[in-house]
Amino acid sequence: MKIFTEEEIRENIKIDTTVIQEIKSAFTDLYTKNVQMPPIMRVDIPENKAEVDVKTAYIPGYKSFALKVSSGFFNNYKYGLPSTGGLMFLISAINGQPEALLYDNGYLTDVRTAAAGAVAADYLANETIDVVGVIGAGAQARYQVEALRFVRDFQHVHIYSKTKKRVLEFKQEMEEKLDIIVSVKDSPEEVARGSDLIITTTPAEEPVLQREWIQPGTHITAMGADAPYKQELDPKILQMADFVVCDVIDQCEVCGELKHAIEANLMDKKNVFELGQLTSQKQKLRDRDDAITVTDLTGTGVQDTKIALYVYKKLIETVESNNK
Amino acid sequence: MKIFTEEEIRENIKIDTTVIQEIKSAFTDLYTKNVQMPPIMRVDIPENKAEVDVKTAYIPGYKSFALKVSSGFFNNYKYGLPSTGGLMFLISAINGQPEALLYDNGYLTDVRTAAAGAVAADYLANETIDVVGVIGAGAQARYQVEALRFVRDFQHVHIYSKTKKRVLEFKQEMEEKLDIIVSVKDSPEEVARGSDLIITTTPAEEPVLQREWIQPGTHITAMGADAPYKQELDPKILQMADFVVCDVIDQCEVCGELKHAIEANLMDKKNVFELGQLTSQKQKLRDRDDAITVTDLTGTGVQDTKIALYVYKKLIETVESNNK
Repeated sequence: MKIFTEEEIRENIKIDTTVIQEIKSAFTDLYTKNVQMPPIMRVDIPENKAEVDVKTAYIPGYKSFALKVSSGFFNNYKYGLPSTGGLMFLISAINGQPEALLYDNGYLTDVRTAAAGAVAADYLANETIDVVGVIGAGAQARYQVEALRFVRDFQHVHIYSKTKKRVLEFKQEMEEKLDIIVSVKDSPEEVARGSDLIITTTPAEEPVLQREWIQPGTHITAMGADAPYKQELDPKILQMADFVVCDVIDQCEVCGELKHAIEANLMDKKNVFELGQLTSQKQKLRDRDDAITVTDLTGTGVQDTKIALYVYKKLIETVESNNK
Repeated sequence: MKIFTEEEIRENIKIDTTVIQEIKSAFTDLYTKNVQMPPIMRVDIPENKAEVDVKTAYIPGYKSFALKVSSGFFNNYKYGLPSTGGLMFLISAINGQPEALLYDNGYLTDVRTAAAGAVAADYLANETIDVVGVIGAGAQARYQVEALRFVRDFQHVHIYSKTKKRVLEFKQEMEEKLDIIVSVKDSPEEVARGSDLIITTTPAEEPVLQREWIQPGTHITAMGADAPYKQELDPKILQMADFVVCDVIDQCEVCGELKHAIEANLMDKKNVFELGQLTSQKQKLRDRDDAITVTDLTGTGVQDTKIALYVYKKLIETVESNNK
């Protein structure tokens, strides 16, 4: 079993067109092949404000598959540690031997999640996007904006976060890295009212976006909710949306925005689609510029398997070329 | 993260009274504490006759918990590889960091499974056992017999297995190791009719033991069934048993012998108990010498966590004492 460190992985894997293509193909596989993807396994450790999730998926025809352990320990700031972490195993689908341990501390989860946001936006958002609104200023906010840049050519980001320090760091980093203008806003409402595309990336347990604030034509990527008690969107946003696209409908009914909209009796599900349906049929649902579209991302094992396969191949090539 | 190899683990951990006590306490914890043990996660790879299971459990009050990946790849004989494998992670319950990788290739699963058989037998079997019957001659057959020796002082083993070569190896190994007499029998019936305690440890998908063969007073440990399609016991055995003891009732209803007995409408469940109920209340259900008792073992994450904690502590102590 080969072991790769976070440093090696970060050095070799960045968000780019290839990664986005890989994640796109993951959703196509999920929709068109008999992918074995069991429900997420979850352990809660309430006394430490902690949760550990396990995801996996086997895609027929591939020689290996990933098993991912990801953790959220929300008291970790007390110990000077990041709250999220994780690692992936690549396991042979031929003989069951563990092939690689990708000890990435959650980096690959960030990358594959951001890539899913970009894939969805590519299929759903208007072609012309001037202002991207971001609610939340953590690592995933950065990765989402970075990934989105590969599918839409925006120049402005409007951001709101409760954490003042983080939001200023975000501004500085993103302006330097992407040559865009980042404006810090005082409320989610201010962000929403001025944006063509909105990304919510918070650990919120109640809506951070209200229906009244959403402008015609907006595409929304909501990726914070990945547990039954998490929620970022006013369920009325899903109700009024022309199209709602889930990574996995069954899963979003349990732990995504869709769950809350269904519970509020606001959804008839006739406008609910799966991302793999769009990618496999090259189907752009948007039928007019002022349509409102929502992507509900809860995270899937098939993304993990696809990125792990890609990373492993790339790292092995790097090792081999260094040995020459 | 510390990594321990199968060799290091095998060198330091053998089946003994301490391990059996640890597993006994695992069942007590499961019954008396708010253990977080999600359902088993399972990936099937039918084209390679393969399955991968993930188990985990967090026991309140412990600083770490295990996450175990175990695999069965039943074409592996073609590649000269063992069909089962696996590894365990010990994860901090305080901050989520992976503390250790126990790369044991399934050895600890064998040990903790055998220990559970011994715990159950200790609570359920008659005190005097002359002949132990064994159906199946794989690694687990050996470990079950070894573990049982710590709780009952038998001198004879009667064994049946379809695989002639394996059964002769079993005889030689066990006679040498345990100073007992092993008699190879020609059928499961012959084994059953002459035994006081029967262990079934096969990958059978239909009963290997029939009700008519079971003698009064017999205790049966069935540990082969750990998937919905697996079955070792005629469901009528569970029906006629005075007491049926599951590792976890909910789980045995899905993937153990109990499932098949319920499906055949043969169980009213009033004589069904959980092992932790016995260990926590020091309750020996057997009320007379000729009672028939059955243990249905499907395997639990709480056993994995307990053995991983024990192994890690022991290995760290060994490393420290070697460094002195």
